[in-house]
Amino acid sequence: MARIAPVNARGTRDFLPRDLVRRNRVFALLRETFERYGYEPLETPAIENTAVLEGKYGEEGERLLFRILKRGRELESGVRALDALPGDERGAGALARSLSDEALRYDLTVPFARVIAAHQNALVFPFRRYQMQPVWRADKPQRGRYREIYQCDVDCVGSRAMSVDAEMVAIHCEVFTKLGFTSFVTKINHRGLLRALMEACDIPEERRGAALTAVDKLDKVGLEGVRDALAKAEIAEAAARKLMEMIAVSGAPDETIARLRPLVGERPDGQRALDELGEVFRALAEMGVPDERVTLDVSLVRGLGYYTGPIFETVLTSSTLGSLGGGGRYDQLIGMFTGRELPCTGISFGIERIFDALDEQGIAPGEAVTTTQALVPLFAPETMAAAFTLARALRAAGFNTQDYPEPSAL
Amino acid sequence: MARIAPVNARGTRDFLPRDLVRRNRVFALLRETFERYGYEPLETPAIENTAVLEGKYGEEGERLLFRILKRGRELESGVRALDALPGDERGAGALARSLSDEALRYDLTVPFARVIAAHQNALVFPFRRYQMQPVWRADKPQRGRYREIYQCDVDCVGSRAMSVDAEMVAIHCEVFTKLGFTSFVTKINHRGLLRALMEACDIPEERRGAALTAVDKLDKVGLEGVRDALAKAEIAEAAARKLMEMIAVSGAPDETIARLRPLVGERPDGQRALDELGEVFRALAEMGVPDERVTLDVSLVRGLGYYTGPIFETVLTSSTLGSLGGGGRYDQLIGMFTGRELPCTGISFGIERIFDALDEQGIAPGEAVTTTQALVPLFAPETMAAAFTLARALRAAGFNTQDYPEPSAL
Repeated sequence: MARIAPVNARGTRDFLPRDLVRRNRVFALLRETFERYGYEPLETPAIENTAVLEGKYGEEGERLLFRILKRGRELESGVRALDALPGDERGAGALARSLSDEALRYDLTVPFARVIAAHQNALVFPFRRYQMQPVWRADKPQRGRYREIYQCDVDCVGSRAMSVDAEMVAIHCEVFTKLGFTSFVTKINHRGLLRALMEACDIPEERRGAALTAVDKLDKVGLEGVRDALAKAEIAEAAARKLMEMIAVSGAPDETIARLRPLVGERPDGQRALDELGEVFRALAEMGVPDERVTLDVSLVRGLGYYTGPIFETVLTSSTLGSLGGGGRYDQLIGMFTGRELPCTGISFGIERIFDALDEQGIAPGEAVTTTQALVPLFAPETMAAAFTLARALRAAGFNTQDYPEPSAL
Repeated sequence: MARIAPVNARGTRDFLPRDLVRRNRVFALLRETFERYGYEPLETPAIENTAVLEGKYGEEGERLLFRILKRGRELESGVRALDALPGDERGAGALARSLSDEALRYDLTVPFARVIAAHQNALVFPFRRYQMQPVWRADKPQRGRYREIYQCDVDCVGSRAMSVDAEMVAIHCEVFTKLGFTSFVTKINHRGLLRALMEACDIPEERRGAALTAVDKLDKVGLEGVRDALAKAEIAEAAARKLMEMIAVSGAPDETIARLRPLVGERPDGQRALDELGEVFRALAEMGVPDERVTLDVSLVRGLGYYTGPIFETVLTSSTLGSLGGGGRYDQLIGMFTGRELPCTGISFGIERIFDALDEQGIAPGEAVTTTQALVPLFAPETMAAAFTLARALRAAGFNTQDYPEPSAL
């Protein structure tokens, strides 16, 4: 027989039962918790028009899109259009645009924003949804880095209430507790506070991105490292010193907020950010989230540019694996599609990182690597009727039961 | 704000909670039943190397593949290779091969065969798995026809036992019963029997495909229609008459088998096919599948070329919607990857058709269109602590509960 090499596409993996049984248990636990909080499932197609995706993920992101080749006549006319281009205009970007107008989902946020915009008149707000689906990124495959990865997002659209932001943190806390993690904390900060602190330190607008990037590294490089990074980012020494003092403020949320108030000064947006942080922490206490699971961390930045309010990130305190997930309020993103602001807050779970962390911490939710619980051998033709009857009774009693025929000589 | 049109890619759909809640209940019912029979989950990546997919789906199928555009330097060199091709060799096929070497999953069978081949030394046979994942086909979108559709396959590799073929039918019967269908029947036939009947009628090898296509239409066009189709297919009149008599044989399986034995005559493969059909029906009775749910239908053909043994198809008897799913034994397909035969039998569920049928028959498994069961309004700051406490108690008692903040003015 002719033989075709049974090789996976680069950077992709098969999930055999041994792995998938555990993955599915974790997915089920997530779904159950989200639905317990009134979040409902949403799914979007794998394929999106490139016009929906472009301009959202930066140059690097767009380079990593899996684009779909046009077909038939559209492909032929795309190639003719290419032929007409002078050689020096035929970079990968121009080629991609001529030959493709669809691409695979790159994250869950942009398709979610598209759905909200498309169905805004049919949805009841606040609209709570969760989405757990794969996304595709043509990253260089490495050990533990794949091109098809699951993402999991939980978002609520249509409310400015800080209780919803607190709910995001409560869901994170409940999921990680149920998964069996014992040493984790959710850091909370506020983009409006960070902005006010930058202003208070007289850091010029164009330097703030670099300054925030330096601040965000506090966890990994310590105060000394941040100081060096700020110097490298050409932040004036006096400003850097002042900023360092601010991000070093810590303690119970109430105390931290009280100590930050004079540093923020007469900046109404900054004071409002502190008010909002106060509301988030009060709601968390009222929701029964244990104090030791949440902290106000002034150095938390979160990479994405679109956050506008409270931001969150959950980390394992006993591991170097970093963040298990995070999120925040983003009141303007959906406006890219709707043309009007829609308040929104959300949190995501780093699914693949969570599996790494479960391994690292030796936690195996649902130890079994099979869903099957009983095996009924079919010894001989004359015992088959009895075997089938037994198997049927076991199934009716709720046991996953395999009839076991003689394996063929292979 | 600049506005991006929130438009879906052609032929794709979003699943809002209203629809997805029902879909997920059906999916859960399927999973639960499969696992009850000892089948375990398997998932493969959306992206496959084109080499794995090519040559499996015919010319038409390959035209409908969603191919992934190469990236970066590979794309540039693909375009250069194209430039070197003379104009008349630049058809869509050549273009696709130069510009792409990966494509989206087109069905679940080929990736399954690849997995078996890749992991054959790590798997324990018989290996039972189910797989429920989307596939992508660039069909012309129509009402009710989409480019991203879910497929659901249940297969067992590594046993020649007819009890496994019977198990496939039992699973079909159990799932459709649990879904609430009351008028359905699974037709069963055998490729070896069909082959023997063709031989017995002296239909020449090269005419058999056309003859089978004509026979397969019995359901839709009746005996008269089949007679016309056989004439059109240039089957000699005597042969056609004999074949018509054979496919008209019906009744209880035992009687049908007894009446077919002389028609099959001294053809060992044909007699063995009848033996195997007898074993399948005996196992079905022993498994408790009601007699009225199964029938031996000599006119059942099933389109796919790779079947080698028993074949199955479940139809609604009170509807024109046609097949809800089907399958059969295919002992040679996996050999395309392994280079050796591996006995295999399987069945699939026509997921999208099943949802159409549920609608048509007015059956709604899980009536609710939301997963949320309780709503706790957060009236005012001073009642929030009480509201959160109530919501927490409801959740702890197992109720899916939403905290309801004031909706923002949108």
